[in-house]
Amino acid sequence: MQNFTYHTPTKVFFGRGTEKEVGRIIKDYGYKKIMLQYGKGSIKKNGLYDVIVSSLNENGIEFVEMGGVEPNPKVSFVREAVKVARAERVELILAVGGGSVLDSSKCTAIGAMNDSDIWDIITGKGKAEKALPVGCVLTISAAGSEMSRSAVLTNTELNMKRGLGSDLNRCKFAICNPELTYTVDKYQTACGIVDIMAHTMERYFTPFEETDLTDRLAEGLLKSVIESGKILMTNPEDYNARANMMWASSLSHNGLTGCFRRDALAVHQLEHALSGEFDHIAHGAGLAVLFPAWGRYVYKSNIPRFAQFARRVWDVTEEDDEKAALLGIEKMAEYFASLGMPTRLSDFGIENVAERLADLCTFGKSRTVESQITLGYDEIKDIFESCY
Amino acid sequence: MQNFTYHTPTKVFFGRGTEKEVGRIIKDYGYKKIMLQYGKGSIKKNGLYDVIVSSLNENGIEFVEMGGVEPNPKVSFVREAVKVARAERVELILAVGGGSVLDSSKCTAIGAMNDSDIWDIITGKGKAEKALPVGCVLTISAAGSEMSRSAVLTNTELNMKRGLGSDLNRCKFAICNPELTYTVDKYQTACGIVDIMAHTMERYFTPFEETDLTDRLAEGLLKSVIESGKILMTNPEDYNARANMMWASSLSHNGLTGCFRRDALAVHQLEHALSGEFDHIAHGAGLAVLFPAWGRYVYKSNIPRFAQFARRVWDVTEEDDEKAALLGIEKMAEYFASLGMPTRLSDFGIENVAERLADLCTFGKSRTVESQITLGYDEIKDIFESCY
Repeated sequence: MQNFTYHTPTKVFFGRGTEKEVGRIIKDYGYKKIMLQYGKGSIKKNGLYDVIVSSLNENGIEFVEMGGVEPNPKVSFVREAVKVARAERVELILAVGGGSVLDSSKCTAIGAMNDSDIWDIITGKGKAEKALPVGCVLTISAAGSEMSRSAVLTNTELNMKRGLGSDLNRCKFAICNPELTYTVDKYQTACGIVDIMAHTMERYFTPFEETDLTDRLAEGLLKSVIESGKILMTNPEDYNARANMMWASSLSHNGLTGCFRRDALAVHQLEHALSGEFDHIAHGAGLAVLFPAWGRYVYKSNIPRFAQFARRVWDVTEEDDEKAALLGIEKMAEYFASLGMPTRLSDFGIENVAERLADLCTFGKSRTVESQITLGYDEIKDIFESCY
Repeated sequence: MQNFTYHTPTKVFFGRGTEKEVGRIIKDYGYKKIMLQYGKGSIKKNGLYDVIVSSLNENGIEFVEMGGVEPNPKVSFVREAVKVARAERVELILAVGGGSVLDSSKCTAIGAMNDSDIWDIITGKGKAEKALPVGCVLTISAAGSEMSRSAVLTNTELNMKRGLGSDLNRCKFAICNPELTYTVDKYQTACGIVDIMAHTMERYFTPFEETDLTDRLAEGLLKSVIESGKILMTNPEDYNARANMMWASSLSHNGLTGCFRRDALAVHQLEHALSGEFDHIAHGAGLAVLFPAWGRYVYKSNIPRFAQFARRVWDVTEEDDEKAALLGIEKMAEYFASLGMPTRLSDFGIENVAERLADLCTFGKSRTVESQITLGYDEIKDIFESCY
């Protein structure tokens, strides 16, 4: 069993109406001037923007705005935001949105407080020692960024998508009202479900055994997400299912399901290469294709574990371990398909560029990715090949 | 589904050898002078005291000592410690021990920073607005105080045991090495197992439905604790089982298993009356008697929930809900008995003083205790009566 450090300092305000408290919460922390980041404007259409602004005004919180964060958020946007944050001397970044807005805000918070350029920090050339605090009003259950120590940025000039894992990335607070996710469409809801499950499954399959408590928690979380996901496909306004999903999004990526294991996210590394190269591919949809493909490729390295996954998460009753292991992977693939997710890379209308993707994923054959087995260039290429 | 606020800021350093890092950890936080609290001296016999002192010395941390914290820690001790903490201007209280040392340290940390007497604060007559930070090196898996917002003190003059729930009670850091619990004897290990399970079951049975994710996490935690407990009864030095138990102790009481529910701990209130009155009764042993008795008394108010508990936690296959519910309660009672726990209050060699205990528990008929049903004086007396 591995030693671990567990630190989830984010204060979560969860439930109906909590977004109306944002101004008071920020005031209670003592911040007076903030930057508001959001996406392409859906929060203006659905009224959330007005709720936030009213709450900030009522509590005397000054703010500057940086709207327009794109999916797969861009380093160019963050560089702009850093300039504004410095010039305006903001004390906190408030992200109103999902994983993209959160990651953009986290990177802005780090960029604003350190001399190095944010891309240099992400790629290890620059150093980060502090960050502005980040708070969020979450509008989609998926990335888990509201409690995680991750942020992912895309550099369009270099065609690269890279993540930064750091405790500086932990949000100060997260406001989570499941009702705000009612309007997330079926496809994006499904992408979120896959992402949440992947965050838990990635840790579940890191190669360390004998972690019964973490296993049980992960399996329970997965079972709950699977059930809530089925409900949301037919009733997107089921509060309990939306709430389960939103809280699962936070717990799947805050470290809880990785205790005694590792926070390494191998399949995520493959997916970052994919959606870094093809901007139209949603992260969750990429994972839906890649996770079963990865499972089929590596399961033989640890059949008992894949069999346990099949039996405890997917209620597989097959007694033969290897058959059970394979059935579990197929049940996962069927579930993703039942959510309307693509099952092959060709579904995205892209050519077979497995070599290019393997090159991107290994940073030009300069790194491997650890999961049940070590994945180098050849293994990663094989997995991508198997998805066409 | 209830709204909730979730905040578990305690940084946990978990695993082998972590206690040797205590001085460095405190130094990294910037504290220079601390108070060391511990119990009756077992840490001096087993060498832990020397490890801690060496680590503090190596890192230049000055400290004053307050050894001698008793089980069911006393307000008189805390009042002394508060005087010392103020006179010596300590910046942090380091608890080396289990729940009693932790609760004593937490109350010292609050007492030292507020004008009101600590007993007045606990009983609501005084106010607490801040506290010194508390860190701990945990030596027993039971109370969950290392991550909880609770502290319990006993006032021997008034023969009262009372708890204080406050975010001021959250530890700054917790150092958790499962190896330090190898020497905890079978009886105390069993008491800890019951306490951990009770913290989760209390929340599980607060009367709110439709909380699938929290249910699944709680059920998984209980299953893992049950299995690890069986292992520890025959092999007290099984690292994995000790580690599961130690981490379960933290997760059972940090709020995780109460999300969407309430943190009300009804059976704990009954037990506090019991061990407040009879100092020789260990908290976990009291719970082992009271929890099944409480279950038998209230299960009819929510048969489907008790049936779910029976099926998911105790693998009961009975199809009739009421029969299943009762079987679950009996399986729990049998499990506690299999750990060597008492099954009746008469096992403690005490007279039937149900009326006195009901009076203590209701603060002289001035409060009720909420669980599946509201427990007033009469109901509480009936439950105590049923335990003889």
